[in-house]
Amino acid sequence: MTELERTIEWHDGTVLMIDQRVLPLHYEIKAYTTYQGVAEAIHTMVIRGAPAIGAAAGFGMALAGLQSTAGTRSDLLHDLEMAAEVLRKSRPTAVNLFWAIDRMLKTSRRFETSGRFTVDDVREALIREAQRIADEDVEINKRMAEYGAALIKDGDTILTHCNTGALAVVDYGTALGVIRRAHEQGKRVKVFADETRPRLQGARLTAWELMRWGIDVTLIADNAAGHYMRKGMVNICFVGSDRTAANGDVANKIGTYKVAVLAKENGIPFYPVVPTSTIDLRLENGDLIPIEERDEREVTEIDGERIAPIGVKVGNPAFDVTPHKYVTGIVTENGIAYPPFEISLKRVVAGGA
Amino acid sequence: MTELERTIEWHDGTVLMIDQRVLPLHYEIKAYTTYQGVAEAIHTMVIRGAPAIGAAAGFGMALAGLQSTAGTRSDLLHDLEMAAEVLRKSRPTAVNLFWAIDRMLKTSRRFETSGRFTVDDVREALIREAQRIADEDVEINKRMAEYGAALIKDGDTILTHCNTGALAVVDYGTALGVIRRAHEQGKRVKVFADETRPRLQGARLTAWELMRWGIDVTLIADNAAGHYMRKGMVNICFVGSDRTAANGDVANKIGTYKVAVLAKENGIPFYPVVPTSTIDLRLENGDLIPIEERDEREVTEIDGERIAPIGVKVGNPAFDVTPHKYVTGIVTENGIAYPPFEISLKRVVAGGA
Repeated sequence: MTELERTIEWHDGTVLMIDQRVLPLHYEIKAYTTYQGVAEAIHTMVIRGAPAIGAAAGFGMALAGLQSTAGTRSDLLHDLEMAAEVLRKSRPTAVNLFWAIDRMLKTSRRFETSGRFTVDDVREALIREAQRIADEDVEINKRMAEYGAALIKDGDTILTHCNTGALAVVDYGTALGVIRRAHEQGKRVKVFADETRPRLQGARLTAWELMRWGIDVTLIADNAAGHYMRKGMVNICFVGSDRTAANGDVANKIGTYKVAVLAKENGIPFYPVVPTSTIDLRLENGDLIPIEERDEREVTEIDGERIAPIGVKVGNPAFDVTPHKYVTGIVTENGIAYPPFEISLKRVVAGGA
Repeated sequence: MTELERTIEWHDGTVLMIDQRVLPLHYEIKAYTTYQGVAEAIHTMVIRGAPAIGAAAGFGMALAGLQSTAGTRSDLLHDLEMAAEVLRKSRPTAVNLFWAIDRMLKTSRRFETSGRFTVDDVREALIREAQRIADEDVEINKRMAEYGAALIKDGDTILTHCNTGALAVVDYGTALGVIRRAHEQGKRVKVFADETRPRLQGARLTAWELMRWGIDVTLIADNAAGHYMRKGMVNICFVGSDRTAANGDVANKIGTYKVAVLAKENGIPFYPVVPTSTIDLRLENGDLIPIEERDEREVTEIDGERIAPIGVKVGNPAFDVTPHKYVTGIVTENGIAYPPFEISLKRVVAGGA
């Protein structure tokens, strides 16, 4: 096949992913048959975006089931716990990762209490559950897009950060899905895409996806976002979130905090678009979210090309936390949560709009 | 010679410059014998930084004097006006460019009223005046550094944007000169250097200079500045300015506005460090400052390596304007101006502290 229909697909015991590290210049598909391979793919960002990582973890657990040579269900559960440990360490910030792994473990344990099922039944159930996680994600994106698109007016210019398109999820997109839906509804929209250093997901992925969808996109350096906001050239901001705390604090790609502060300063509404699976009600606030520190070469090199002095110290946090006071509302598949978020987020997580 | 003592030097009718486009991996010296070459060097950013551009323009005018085949003073003045036109177009935002050119033209006109001087006298006077501009710049930097360093406490962590070191001026540095002086005074300081996309002056030049001076520097993506500020890890911000309006609005490298807004939001003082030659009292406010839009390849390519989809639209403003309400004070060679800037800037421009 030349292109996948989705960012990540299950084909008969093999997990296929679009290699997002080589876009937009190359379109390559990676194949994995082990959970270790999937963990490595998450860690090295072959696949990224909280919902896509969740789906990958689900398929990783399904692979772990197939890899296990266990003859009994308790041995299989043991092997799955081991795989879960490895997968959990692949990216520390994205809560979907943990959420999907827990869901897969729960699925495997459902069979413990009954003697009617074989080890193979568990293996098959894991594959079905991973598929379900993937399918649900697409459905959730479309529901978020519908709620979010209602916030966009004809003629709006939208600023977005990082990549939250079909590539960040299984299919369709979160924040970019909202913009995509508004475009499908016939609204004339323009997008400023932050290039999103250090990994340039905006330049490499967001610009590429928006161009493919026929949406007017202007790529800018992250430094230029404030300039366009102050000039009155941005009407609304949509971003993703890797983890949202109970009080509405949002952990997302480094630089999101900057977008939120600049938006508030210029009277521009700022909306994270988040599946409820990324809302972590056990976390009181965003400062409890662990922030992944990534390899310094992401900052000192671009495509292997050195851009900084040899030996320089580097700070490379992958995420930052945007305090809820900068958040206008949080778009979910169960409606939009508005302040006070302590109340509204509980409601959307419970499924109520 | 293997290294220049200054960023730009006059050697017997030849202007030498460090090629700032290839640092930090290569140290190359460019030589120019025509004002057109100097204009091109400014435009392509072989040399950059408002004060360094001013000095380059001065030497460019001196070269124009030597290039001219005029036999009369009025013919020479005509040729100099032509050269001034070309040099003025090399970078539209830096006011030092215009300031230095005007100063050189004034020097050439000083001889008009007297018949005692030859065309060669004017040529020599131009060379002396260009040298004087360069020497004064070094002196001014050291005075600014003294005023600014008094704002830095032992143990402070400083955030800076773009490059304002010796490379941005003739020698020593503006905002980075302030940090350098504090370090020379024995204060233990640490610096976060924004990498400063799109041209990466922070990664390429600031990190390189600070390391050479033995100052503790951590290179970060521009997106990470807010994260460290919110975490309480930044005590004070120093930046440069290419042009400052009468009300204290500051035009500087794209992304400076972001630094200022984030600093204010986090209670961190924000100081531009500006020679009075960059203060433009004729401009009521910063929105009257023309903002240079640069080649889109600065965003879509890094070292000729493509990082964005072919055909994507790009916005690439080289500067932004930071409104004075985000500015704690403006450090000049004649003291620090504090709000209300309408009054304090007039005082420092007039020479009073």
